Amino acid sequence: MDLKPTKPLSGFIELLPAQQRCFDECAGRMLDVLRTAGFSNLDLPAIERAEVLTDKDNWDEIETQMFLFKKGDTKMGLRYDGTVGLSRYVAGHLNDLTFPFRASQFSKRYRGERAQRGRYREFYQMDMDIMGINSLSSNYDAEIICVIQRALNSVREFIGENRVLVGSRPFWDALFDYLEMSDAQKKSVFVLIDKKDKMGDDDFAEGLSEALSDADKENKIKSVFTDGYQNFLNKSDKLDSAVRELTDFMKILDEIGVKNAEIDLAITRGLAYYTGLVFEFKLIEHPELGTAAGGGRYADLAGKFSKTKIIGVGAAIGFSRMFVALLESGQIDLSRFENPIDAAVLVMGAANTGYAMRVLNALRDENIVAVAYLDADKKFKNQIEYADKIKAKYSIIIGEDEVKNQALSVKNMTTGQQCAMSVVDAVKLLKNV
Amino acid sequence: MDLKPTKPLSGFIELLPAQQRCFDECAGRMLDVLRTAGFSNLDLPAIERAEVLTDKDNWDEIETQMFLFKKGDTKMGLRYDGTVGLSRYVAGHLNDLTFPFRASQFSKRYRGERAQRGRYREFYQMDMDIMGINSLSSNYDAEIICVIQRALNSVREFIGENRVLVGSRPFWDALFDYLEMSDAQKKSVFVLIDKKDKMGDDDFAEGLSEALSDADKENKIKSVFTDGYQNFLNKSDKLDSAVRELTDFMKILDEIGVKNAEIDLAITRGLAYYTGLVFEFKLIEHPELGTAAGGGRYADLAGKFSKTKIIGVGAAIGFSRMFVALLESGQIDLSRFENPIDAAVLVMGAANTGYAMRVLNALRDENIVAVAYLDADKKFKNQIEYADKIKAKYSIIIGEDEVKNQALSVKNMTTGQQCAMSVVDAVKLLKNV
Repeated sequence: MDLKPTKPLSGFIELLPAQQRCFDECAGRMLDVLRTAGFSNLDLPAIERAEVLTDKDNWDEIETQMFLFKKGDTKMGLRYDGTVGLSRYVAGHLNDLTFPFRASQFSKRYRGERAQRGRYREFYQMDMDIMGINSLSSNYDAEIICVIQRALNSVREFIGENRVLVGSRPFWDALFDYLEMSDAQKKSVFVLIDKKDKMGDDDFAEGLSEALSDADKENKIKSVFTDGYQNFLNKSDKLDSAVRELTDFMKILDEIGVKNAEIDLAITRGLAYYTGLVFEFKLIEHPELGTAAGGGRYADLAGKFSKTKIIGVGAAIGFSRMFVALLESGQIDLSRFENPIDAAVLVMGAANTGYAMRVLNALRDENIVAVAYLDADKKFKNQIEYADKIKAKYSIIIGEDEVKNQALSVKNMTTGQQCAMSVVDAVKLLKNV
Repeated sequence: MDLKPTKPLSGFIELLPAQQRCFDECAGRMLDVLRTAGFSNLDLPAIERAEVLTDKDNWDEIETQMFLFKKGDTKMGLRYDGTVGLSRYVAGHLNDLTFPFRASQFSKRYRGERAQRGRYREFYQMDMDIMGINSLSSNYDAEIICVIQRALNSVREFIGENRVLVGSRPFWDALFDYLEMSDAQKKSVFVLIDKKDKMGDDDFAEGLSEALSDADKENKIKSVFTDGYQNFLNKSDKLDSAVRELTDFMKILDEIGVKNAEIDLAITRGLAYYTGLVFEFKLIEHPELGTAAGGGRYADLAGKFSKTKIIGVGAAIGFSRMFVALLESGQIDLSRFENPIDAAVLVMGAANTGYAMRVLNALRDENIVAVAYLDADKKFKNQIEYADKIKAKYSIIIGEDEVKNQALSVKNMTTGQQCAMSVVDAVKLLKNV
């Protein structure tokens, strides 16, 4: 019989134990930041009805972007983000939740598209959203940014420092109105702006010229990327109000201790959802990772599911995107994740197994990470080799004498020093490892 | 536009925030037991190649049991258990791992079959496996049972006491040989035994008679379920050795402190994988939940993937099965999960927002779970109502005076008592909540 492949499907992530421990440690710290900030963790289904996942009816196109399947007559698929399930959940539980409601999610998402370098087909994102009914102060946008920065800072030793760029969808709306652009022009120019980074300056200029055929308007739009909003003060009330919202917001960010925040009107965050301020976090020491986290405000989160107007501000941290890339490229020093085992219990002779396993339980009861080598008929040499290989900090050797004396031989695997002691003393020693 | 459905698909689980906190607390405690026992957490892809998921080639049948889909020319699907991915992973990383290798997994699994009461189409299981190359002492089977019991006991306040029933596949093999059954008879009788609980005694007897047409053999097999192995001692070496393995094993379980362990030869754990001892945990106070955890030994875990013989002993805890049922039927008192918030910061007037959010950060820095009500123009009445609704233990009220004095008004939401204090004193007070 032919052997089956042992590699996972392309675009799927598989970590080695030490990498996984680092991944889990980072997730744990960041989730703790969210918990302390009062976010309720939600663990929603990974599978949603197709009609919940998308409004499109071009199934060919959808199927290339998603994992879709049918059960009975129901078309369903794997979620591609956390927002779609969240909006359904919140709309379905309006009376069970207290608003403003803070929700966090740390879950796998799926994209059906062909795998590319740095793009996964299954990946974790960590979402946080604050939602209000009918109104929600922009202070919550500031809070989300503050919480993301705290979360990223909790793993600073692995990812370094971060900065946040803040953009404004209302600014572009106001500018397009001021330039008296048609609806069709607004739409195509916004698509261009959103893709500007990917397409480069020349293609962008060409696209603008195609859409607008008006050198003055084209130059005004281009000037935003060089001079910011400066040229557009005192032009229209709508522009002034968009700029004021943005500058006031930066002041609040400063007041609440957010570091490295800048206005960057090139930040738009795509076409869907967002209607207000938008933002992206970058890692200063890892520009190659692109956007570490991004989000913004949406005026109507759950309009598809409910007549109640739910206003939200939310963000997603690209957790796998960041950590898997850093882990796989060897940019994280894993040495402290290589040896999680405090004690390896080695058993010399089957008759001593019961005692050895009671010792094992006593260690584990005290939260000491302990394993036993239970093939008790194996030679000492094999057993100590095992303790060495798993990088155990201590070995505890149990033979006839130890059982007779109800004691232990404890060997420090770094110094090689070995001494006899009681179980109680061994627990004391190992608790301080 | 019609509103879209807010309910999840049938068979999918969705918890309210307090239920989720209880779920997460139980998962955290049990995972900590596994971590302390030296198990390496693995987080494997939920999607596997179809050829990895199954050897069958009857796709209609497979598709009704699994979520399957195609991308390009590749058939793939969602995993239905943790073993299939684990065996692929271990076979692919033989040189990266130290054996005996202890692996744990806590992940979602999927079954495509129609949803039934108590059966989910997406659910969590918590797996633990110990794997060795070529040999693995049965002491590891005892360790797994011990670790499962410790994990279940870590959440004893929610699920009560447990017991473990131990069966033996080798016993049945030996008995079938002793009864001189044909291969076809062995197979059909084993299927009957595996389904006995579901089919009832009469159907079982009828099935036996159909398969064997030999009253003596039928009665001997039936006697196992009433008298155990007693009638089969000193009949054949193979039977004696199977019984000895089982009785020795029970002795070890007793020695290492496993409580409520009994031999039950009706435990077989289905047809796949297992080749040695098998076991099931039941919750004494919740017989309605059926099997809380089950597992056993397999002689060749990864034969499909590798020529290296990997012997394993493993088990899965039916995590969702247990906790979702208990949560949804209201059998877990959730009151302590209803109020995770230590402090609600209430802001009286927009000018005080910056100070309020710095206070918020100071609390969160000290691991105090704190949220702020940041619609600062809302009336005090609305804000204190919010603090009440989220069951915050304390409210911290910040207005002009508090900012001027760089102090806080702290209100105990249980007693209603309110007093002014410094931020430092508030932190001290709240850390002891």
